Amino acid sequence: MTDQRTGASSTPVIGAHKGYLTGSRPDIRVPVRRVHLTDGNTVTLYDTSGPYTDPEVECDVRAGLPALRRRWIEERANDGTGDVTQLAYARRGEITREMEFVALRENRSPEFVRDEIAAGRAVLPVNIHHPESEPMIIGQNFLVKVNANIGNSAVTSSVDEEVEKMTWATRWGADTVMDLSTGRDIHTTREWVLRNSPVPIGTVPLYQALEKVGGKAEELSWEVYRDTVIEQAEQGVDYMTVHAGVLLRYVPLTARRRTGIVSRGGSIMAAWCLAHHRESFLYTHFAELCEILAAYDITFSLGDGLRPGSIADANDAAQFAELRTLGELCAVAREHNVQTMVEGPGHVPMDKIKENVDLQQEICREAPFYTLGPLTTDIAPAYDHITSAIGAAMIAWWGTAMLCYVTPKEHLGLPDRDDVKAGVIAYKIAAHAADLAKGHPGAQLWDDALSDARFEFRWEDQFNLSLDPDTARAYHDETLPAEPAKTAHFCSMCGPKFCSMKISQDIRADFGDQLEAGADQLSTDEIERGMAEKSREFAESGQRVYLPLAD
Amino acid sequence: MTDQRTGASSTPVIGAHKGYLTGSRPDIRVPVRRVHLTDGNTVTLYDTSGPYTDPEVECDVRAGLPALRRRWIEERANDGTGDVTQLAYARRGEITREMEFVALRENRSPEFVRDEIAAGRAVLPVNIHHPESEPMIIGQNFLVKVNANIGNSAVTSSVDEEVEKMTWATRWGADTVMDLSTGRDIHTTREWVLRNSPVPIGTVPLYQALEKVGGKAEELSWEVYRDTVIEQAEQGVDYMTVHAGVLLRYVPLTARRRTGIVSRGGSIMAAWCLAHHRESFLYTHFAELCEILAAYDITFSLGDGLRPGSIADANDAAQFAELRTLGELCAVAREHNVQTMVEGPGHVPMDKIKENVDLQQEICREAPFYTLGPLTTDIAPAYDHITSAIGAAMIAWWGTAMLCYVTPKEHLGLPDRDDVKAGVIAYKIAAHAADLAKGHPGAQLWDDALSDARFEFRWEDQFNLSLDPDTARAYHDETLPAEPAKTAHFCSMCGPKFCSMKISQDIRADFGDQLEAGADQLSTDEIERGMAEKSREFAESGQRVYLPLAD
Repeated sequence: MTDQRTGASSTPVIGAHKGYLTGSRPDIRVPVRRVHLTDGNTVTLYDTSGPYTDPEVECDVRAGLPALRRRWIEERANDGTGDVTQLAYARRGEITREMEFVALRENRSPEFVRDEIAAGRAVLPVNIHHPESEPMIIGQNFLVKVNANIGNSAVTSSVDEEVEKMTWATRWGADTVMDLSTGRDIHTTREWVLRNSPVPIGTVPLYQALEKVGGKAEELSWEVYRDTVIEQAEQGVDYMTVHAGVLLRYVPLTARRRTGIVSRGGSIMAAWCLAHHRESFLYTHFAELCEILAAYDITFSLGDGLRPGSIADANDAAQFAELRTLGELCAVAREHNVQTMVEGPGHVPMDKIKENVDLQQEICREAPFYTLGPLTTDIAPAYDHITSAIGAAMIAWWGTAMLCYVTPKEHLGLPDRDDVKAGVIAYKIAAHAADLAKGHPGAQLWDDALSDARFEFRWEDQFNLSLDPDTARAYHDETLPAEPAKTAHFCSMCGPKFCSMKISQDIRADFGDQLEAGADQLSTDEIERGMAEKSREFAESGQRVYLPLAD
Repeated sequence: MTDQRTGASSTPVIGAHKGYLTGSRPDIRVPVRRVHLTDGNTVTLYDTSGPYTDPEVECDVRAGLPALRRRWIEERANDGTGDVTQLAYARRGEITREMEFVALRENRSPEFVRDEIAAGRAVLPVNIHHPESEPMIIGQNFLVKVNANIGNSAVTSSVDEEVEKMTWATRWGADTVMDLSTGRDIHTTREWVLRNSPVPIGTVPLYQALEKVGGKAEELSWEVYRDTVIEQAEQGVDYMTVHAGVLLRYVPLTARRRTGIVSRGGSIMAAWCLAHHRESFLYTHFAELCEILAAYDITFSLGDGLRPGSIADANDAAQFAELRTLGELCAVAREHNVQTMVEGPGHVPMDKIKENVDLQQEICREAPFYTLGPLTTDIAPAYDHITSAIGAAMIAWWGTAMLCYVTPKEHLGLPDRDDVKAGVIAYKIAAHAADLAKGHPGAQLWDDALSDARFEFRWEDQFNLSLDPDTARAYHDETLPAEPAKTAHFCSMCGPKFCSMKISQDIRADFGDQLEAGADQLSTDEIERGMAEKSREFAESGQRVYLPLAD
């Protein structure tokens, strides 16, 4: 249910219960979604939906969420040990509360979390001014994460709508949210989103800076930009996209591209560089920027301003020239103890995807890669959540740590609530498919539980374990709405006589002993030997159906 | 528009014109979809929609489609040269009209088509009793094809609905259709579908055979099955799924699976084998079956009755034991000049997909692989068109020739019209993404044309070139419905000031000469050298932002 006054999606998830894992002290409480099955088992799932799905918590969007990290931040401030970033603590060998929180959340040891952060292979984006957020970690050795973009544009949308999209996106599984507003009330929209967000919030400060100079790229300056970054840092933004790799001399490399520069930030900085015929102020002032971000523990998301916007432009000279510069900037940021991830494309055909992640991992020394899709074809506007989920699943399997979703509205308009959900679901599928392919510990338990429910015709369990229980239930009920169908040993796809799972169960019921005895006797090798023997028998008997196995 | 009396979707596609490429004689007319762009260019696309989208043809579902291949079949019958299969002709070195047709359709030489068929690497499914169908080819060196399943079940659907689904599926790009009816009026439904289908029709004869014995698997017999095959062969079915690889001794291998046997045909044959404790009649009578199929030029689709139905069961002993048997049967079928493809899974995590296609290609000596997805995770019922489009795109890139679609209703209910469209579109995306990754000649022209339209803000062209023009247009118009927005240099996603493509175009307008000069001067190597030089300069000047490139 949506609170009409405030825009927040705040009801418990049907068929699940909100639970918490408790750490070494009572204020380390990691939220989980518990699905209690009809067979008595419970499946525990990662949960990003925040207090909104906890019936014990009264959420008031005007008051904001409880500041669960405030005490941890204050305790550390009193230590006075120097740099406040998670990277600095990790390098000093310290395990913060946030690290313990994510360790519990990901079923890893706190030491492992600390070491991954210290090596720069993972980031834990937590602005000290955003105490409301529940700590989460982004890195190739953790669960693949999904970011959902929200934000108004000059053409459409309001503050309430954006807060609603944020709670809606996290309800369906978004691990971070970027507020990309470019329209009216940018500051106010962001304030509401931050105070009510249970996940880290990212922004592209350049957008607001451009608004401040009336939308004229050439009137941008380091000073306007810096002040905007500080304004957003004070509000609590957890990570910021900075297009500091778009250098003056790279811009001509885009001249003969099919689709030029398709990153907003990239095109703005290219316009600035050309207008002034000077190097980008983001690049020349990068060290100062590091100092600001370090003071708040804001994570860099180094933007790929020259990413390809079409299949034709994938993996070209402009894109990879910028990537090399991002690698340099990555090293500078680490020197300043600033956590850093690196953004990636874009539009890339399947055969060119792996090169992207391999190069990025090499050049940026394993800094987490954060990719937009990539879209694997240009021909399907209105379905780019699918064209890109394909590329996203693959690139995540090969090492990308976080996927920026693409909605069905990409290239066509600003996503609404339904588009946000469609985008998040498609990307949760891609992320989980990658977790499975990477063999992430425990990832397959979810699939196994759902498959068991399916095979045993526990329809309610199947729905409740689904990524989207509401839609799974609704689709089933379209043709078989009656209550008895919820325990029936078939659905309308095949009907009762043709349900393979039913036949398969009947086989087990009728021939169980025989099957078990057979399974005990036979290893794969024995089966193979048995086949070869049968084959010989057949051949000797003059029958034709078998051909020798060997040829 | 749907003809309410007959169920056929029969109106021209908006924004495109039906055209034909003519071959060596006037009755070889290959249909194409021509999109005339506002910049004066024309893009020619593969077209499966049949006469329904040709305003010059009056389609009457009661009369059926024109029998375009009848003369070719009759001319060959008069030759009396022996086996009538395309494989037999190809092996004799002959190029049939059908081969010339598909050569024109795929922009290949007729000799190449013939040689691929002769080698068994491609099939051209054309029952001599289905003269209405437009020839198409399935093979790894041709465009990746998509099959759509339709068919009623005992629970739902009517003949009209199935004919409508067939025309609807081909309108959106289905290259073949399988009629999997298991309910009432199986024979009549199939007759209507065949007489009105512009694409090859596949079936699983076992389903109708089972109906004939009252749904009791143990009462099936070779005789009932054979008669059903002949009945369907006479009607004109172009390819048949036969689960002849489910052998008695493989059934115990499924006993400890998470989800047992999930293929309908597989579970029926397993039940029969266990009930009689005898080898499958499909296997023991396989040579006779080959003789029947050869007489009509029906193509085998060797079914994978033991495919995995969950991530947990992927690539197990049961699955690969059956695959080896399918390899043997493949060789038997080829001896009988029967064209043959082989079906594949199912549910497979991404890291285990490639093994499937590599093994199949090796064991079945490059016979076309025809896979259901595979689904890359089990957790998303209601979105299995997406979980499986991911696997489908990958397996097609690696060599699968045809993809059997999965709709959002998979596991939940019988797909309706909207589900059929959603499934076809998701799979056309997967197939085209694979064509791009394989570097299929000409595949990228479509993407390039759409990207050009996008970059030049030719909105109408972008819509008309889309896989689904209706939805692309509708999504755009949701927020910017007015006519001037169709030529505007932005959309509602970013608004006018933040449109990167607009900024990129402005850059070209303002700095075009400078950019072109830059692009002329700079090769990638020069850029790299330039970077290194700048880096040195910076380092020498004492600034910190640059780090040496070398490390």
